[in-house]
Amino acid sequence: MRATVIHGTRDVRLETVPDPQILRPTDAIVRVVASCVCGSDLWQYRGVNEVTKPSRIGHEFVGVVEEVGPQVTQIRPGQFVVAPFSICDNTCVHCRNGVHTSCTNLAWWGSTDQDDLPTDGGQGEFVRVPMADGTLVATPEHPSDELLPSVLALADVFGTGHHAAVSAGVKVGSTVAVIGDGAVGLSAVLAAQRLGAGRIIAMSRHESRQVVAREFGATDIIAARGAEGVAELMELTDGVGVDCALECVGTKESMQQALDSARPGGKVGFVGVPAGGPELPVRQMFSSNVGVNGGVAPVRGYIPELMADVYAGTVNPGRVFDLTVPLAEVAEAYAAMDERRAIKSMLLP
Amino acid sequence: MRATVIHGTRDVRLETVPDPQILRPTDAIVRVVASCVCGSDLWQYRGVNEVTKPSRIGHEFVGVVEEVGPQVTQIRPGQFVVAPFSICDNTCVHCRNGVHTSCTNLAWWGSTDQDDLPTDGGQGEFVRVPMADGTLVATPEHPSDELLPSVLALADVFGTGHHAAVSAGVKVGSTVAVIGDGAVGLSAVLAAQRLGAGRIIAMSRHESRQVVAREFGATDIIAARGAEGVAELMELTDGVGVDCALECVGTKESMQQALDSARPGGKVGFVGVPAGGPELPVRQMFSSNVGVNGGVAPVRGYIPELMADVYAGTVNPGRVFDLTVPLAEVAEAYAAMDERRAIKSMLLP
Repeated sequence: MRATVIHGTRDVRLETVPDPQILRPTDAIVRVVASCVCGSDLWQYRGVNEVTKPSRIGHEFVGVVEEVGPQVTQIRPGQFVVAPFSICDNTCVHCRNGVHTSCTNLAWWGSTDQDDLPTDGGQGEFVRVPMADGTLVATPEHPSDELLPSVLALADVFGTGHHAAVSAGVKVGSTVAVIGDGAVGLSAVLAAQRLGAGRIIAMSRHESRQVVAREFGATDIIAARGAEGVAELMELTDGVGVDCALECVGTKESMQQALDSARPGGKVGFVGVPAGGPELPVRQMFSSNVGVNGGVAPVRGYIPELMADVYAGTVNPGRVFDLTVPLAEVAEAYAAMDERRAIKSMLLP
Repeated sequence: MRATVIHGTRDVRLETVPDPQILRPTDAIVRVVASCVCGSDLWQYRGVNEVTKPSRIGHEFVGVVEEVGPQVTQIRPGQFVVAPFSICDNTCVHCRNGVHTSCTNLAWWGSTDQDDLPTDGGQGEFVRVPMADGTLVATPEHPSDELLPSVLALADVFGTGHHAAVSAGVKVGSTVAVIGDGAVGLSAVLAAQRLGAGRIIAMSRHESRQVVAREFGATDIIAARGAEGVAELMELTDGVGVDCALECVGTKESMQQALDSARPGGKVGFVGVPAGGPELPVRQMFSSNVGVNGGVAPVRGYIPELMADVYAGTVNPGRVFDLTVPLAEVAEAYAAMDERRAIKSMLLP
């Protein structure tokens, strides 16, 4: 089969690799119908995270089950499935607590599984799925071409935005600020709107992204950043700040902006992967009672709830995909995101 | 009148000072019936916070209203009242949000009020109370001598422990760890028990404090600290960690112990004043989804709810007072806490 391999900085290639096979009785083989590029894939692409050897890449995909191992009981060949960005058993204590990203059998795509066997990346034609009953969620029916992007968004980006909103305690009537206008930040706007937020202030400097933010429910847009952005937000909120600040970037500056935007007693929900490990100013949190919650999103647990709304047509998270290319052009999918020509790139076989 | 003045490291004196008077139409004068020494008073006493000039001290007191200004409408002379450790209007947006310690008119005892007029400390015979209708809470009746310590505990320590528990999301059945066995830590044990925690692990090395922790509802005691303490906690919780870790110390080490004790997706509730400003390890929080919430406790808002249980006799937070001395011996009240001979000292006129 063909699959994407990253060789180094700005060097991704579609290559011929061995077809995956069932290696464990709990495995499934999925034929990928759509996959995509994540903002976090760009870390390796840009050389922020060093690529020490050619590696399979991609962790967001949906597709059709081709084959299952003898111990797979929930997932059946022919089903259309969503694979979340991490592999889990969905039965351990942490999964039962809703924190699937801390599964005791946690594993990652393009790495190794719970038995140290190599795992496929999502940006390919087929994927061996370990612990298929735990990892995969079947859709009610095969999605139409129109619905496909929104179903694909369930693999990571919509669930991650939802996690930011849930972690910040967004509820009906909440005033919300979203820091970050990438695919996750835009998804967080949609998630906040879905949870009933009364006001959603999107921090965005890019006109094309502002358009999506508005479609997703943003009531106000602030283009300024840092202290200037906070000052504008304070003006919009009568000097109070917001109930919930959704941090969807992962830098020290964006976290500071989130902390400064929250009202006393408000909450920051953070899902931006902390770049370089900025530490949190605990004295500011102490004096303001602004809490910080969030982390790597337990998307697996959110998929059933969010999928119901995707199939009901009440949310359209696939709107974040503004570029679709064939898998053969995966290099362009990365380049377009790297150069900010695309918010998020979808790949079709 | 007589009031406590701190002159420098380990130098507190009871001195004669001017009697307080109504300075603003919203003031009240309270005759102090009982006051106490806070762990945070020891910071100045020990020289951790420098004392640059002789200053009035003490921020926890209860007493009887002697006189009120013409604009005071809720509080009446003759009432027995609890004064929380900070002064607030109880009407601004932050007070309405339950964050009285971020009141737009916030002021402190032994400092200056919202109009920059000097405020009395609580460790004296009388106190001028600014914004009396906002700051003070009247009790249903004058407390008996037996009830007095528990009513006094409402001024700070019980509400602060309660804030740790609330911030960590303690609910019926929660597994809780409490880091810190000072008066606040012990109060947090009681608060967790009151909220229905299923299991409460108290970290305590001092036998006398372990006794109180058990009385307050601790089901397990761990004497070890740091990594060793965490290892024992993990053994007690089948390697999972606790739902809620209540950080009641304020050092980098105690915060780390709290973060390491929480299960994935669990919460740290922190009320320990951050000594020196330890920063929080955001990458650990990200990978574990452990949230950190809390801060300076908005005790004013909690008093009515907690007072009802104190008067009903279902909680006895005054148990943290294990030394009672007359105001004239305030120096001994400080020394006993400084030398860890007492958990918390109560002062009677």
